[in-house]
Amino acid sequence: MFYTLEILGTIAFAFSGSLAAFNKKMDVFGVFVVAFVTAMGGGMLRDILIGNTPVVWMKDLTYIFVIGTGTITALIFRKKLMYLRRSLFLFDSIGLGIFTIIGIEKGIEAELHPIVCITLGTLTACFGGVVRDILCNDIPVIFRKEIYATVCVLGGIVFFLLKEINLTDNLIYLVTSLLIIIIRLIVVIKKWRLPRVT
Amino acid sequence: MFYTLEILGTIAFAFSGSLAAFNKKMDVFGVFVVAFVTAMGGGMLRDILIGNTPVVWMKDLTYIFVIGTGTITALIFRKKLMYLRRSLFLFDSIGLGIFTIIGIEKGIEAELHPIVCITLGTLTACFGGVVRDILCNDIPVIFRKEIYATVCVLGGIVFFLLKEINLTDNLIYLVTSLLIIIIRLIVVIKKWRLPRVT
Amino acid sequence: MFYTLEILGTIAFAFSGSLAAFNKKMDVFGVFVVAFVTAMGGGMLRDILIGNTPVVWMKDLTYIFVIGTGTITALIFRKKLMYLRRSLFLFDSIGLGIFTIIGIEKGIEAELHPIVCITLGTLTACFGGVVRDILCNDIPVIFRKEIYATVCVLGGIVFFLLKEINLTDNLIYLVTSLLIIIIRLIVVIKKWRLPRVT
Repeated sequence: MFYTLEILGTIAFAFSGSLAAFNKKMDVFGVFVVAFVTAMGGGMLRDILIGNTPVVWMKDLTYIFVIGTGTITALIFRKKLMYLRRSLFLFDSIGLGIFTIIGIEKGIEAELHPIVCITLGTLTACFGGVVRDILCNDIPVIFRKEIYATVCVLGGIVFFLLKEINLTDNLIYLVTSLLIIIIRLIVVIKKWRLPRVT
Repeated sequence: MFYTLEILGTIAFAFSGSLAAFNKKMDVFGVFVVAFVTAMGGGMLRDILIGNTPVVWMKDLTYIFVIGTGTITALIFRKKLMYLRRSLFLFDSIGLGIFTIIGIEKGIEAELHPIVCITLGTLTACFGGVVRDILCNDIPVIFRKEIYATVCVLGGIVFFLLKEINLTDNLIYLVTSLLIIIIRLIVVIKKWRLPRVT
Repeated sequence: MFYTLEILGTIAFAFSGSLAAFNKKMDVFGVFVVAFVTAMGGGMLRDILIGNTPVVWMKDLTYIFVIGTGTITALIFRKKLMYLRRSLFLFDSIGLGIFTIIGIEKGIEAELHPIVCITLGTLTACFGGVVRDILCNDIPVIFRKEIYATVCVLGGIVFFLLKEINLTDNLIYLVTSLLIIIIRLIVVIKKWRLPRVT
């Protein structure tokens, strides 16, 4: 189930990256690069910080193939997907929920402190999107005025609370990722914001 | 004493990052992220380049707590700190002096050549500030027309000269870091510049 | 021969970086930093992703000396080199050809899959130039409308095809790097482009 989740999150972020690149009218190579970096950027940074190298997509070709297939699918159906351009944030939210959990699990594997694990989860989930926005020359979504990374931190805290009460891993994954996705969607729709420093 | 210095430098850079984020009217999460990256960015890059992973803040929670406390303190006293906004460069200079020495010491630990150690020291001291300025959408202070990184290189050379004449480590740390801080302050006040290529 | 190639590529990229920095009228320290990052950026990212740390220039001072000498040479002859400013892409192309091969070889050494090796080659060749352009505040050449990284991917495919028919390594290096350099030059002169997504 864990691996399936990882592939799902990768597809969601590859779509989110492709859509962002379509909006900028990039060439086909550019679209693939943005899709790849959006999907793999967070995981790469996490693996580098932990020292878990070579990074994951070098050891398992599945990621490259999934992103390649995802990008080509997005290219073929781009006319239909363009109606979804405002739904970019939907794919982004799904990736956000799944990748937070993957980052936390990698932290636990490396026997790091829960606080560090939650940081790693947030980083895994958010960094790909930051690089996507920089490559597309947009202001990173994370620095815009909505709540973004905070949702991952919240999800991470729930993750460890559920672990305390001994839920099964699969149930924890499900509850936490759905929670992150739903809160993130509500945040975007309701335009919730964190207090600004004045 | 070495560890104390490191914590002091971390606080100085966390303050410098918080102040920069206040100036940009970021939300509370943004302030913490900028403070964290300013304080830890240089050390992270250094540890990654040396292969000294997991990076330091993952193995010792003190850093996260110090930066968290520093950011909250800065938030509470922000009205008073805002008078100091032009003194951003003071905290920056203190961090610069201390982090140069820490970078050099980590290079020596890894048995690298003095030239590489000086490069590591300069990188440790300067990279956090570069990322802070990028996140705040300012032109990095390092690329502005003042002398910045050159002060660290100079301090690094003095460090190894003092080591040659067998001064005690603590004395070398003190002399070198004070030297860097003072030269940096003079540079800012006197507006010294490196020759430009014409 | 392999090591000689690496030094040649380093000089080509150091020149390309210096010229870009001259055009921006940076100070002498800035010129060295841009030259260094252009020449070493791709290799550093590759070594970090593979986990081949400390990165190469820390273990062998030759690189720092070559880049230092190259930058000083470029500084002294800058009036003459400035006539070549439009030839920036010539040095860039030579570096591109050589660094692709070096990246591929490092991937083979680490026993990675050919697809991953080609990715590493492309990354080694292209990343330094991307950072150079970001530091000089230009739109990265790789994201402009010409074919850039695609040439490296093509060269990488030819590399493994030639390996299949058992050519000697030196011959493969020569043919592949010349191929990349020539195609790249044709691309720039003929203004070839990849199809854009519409």
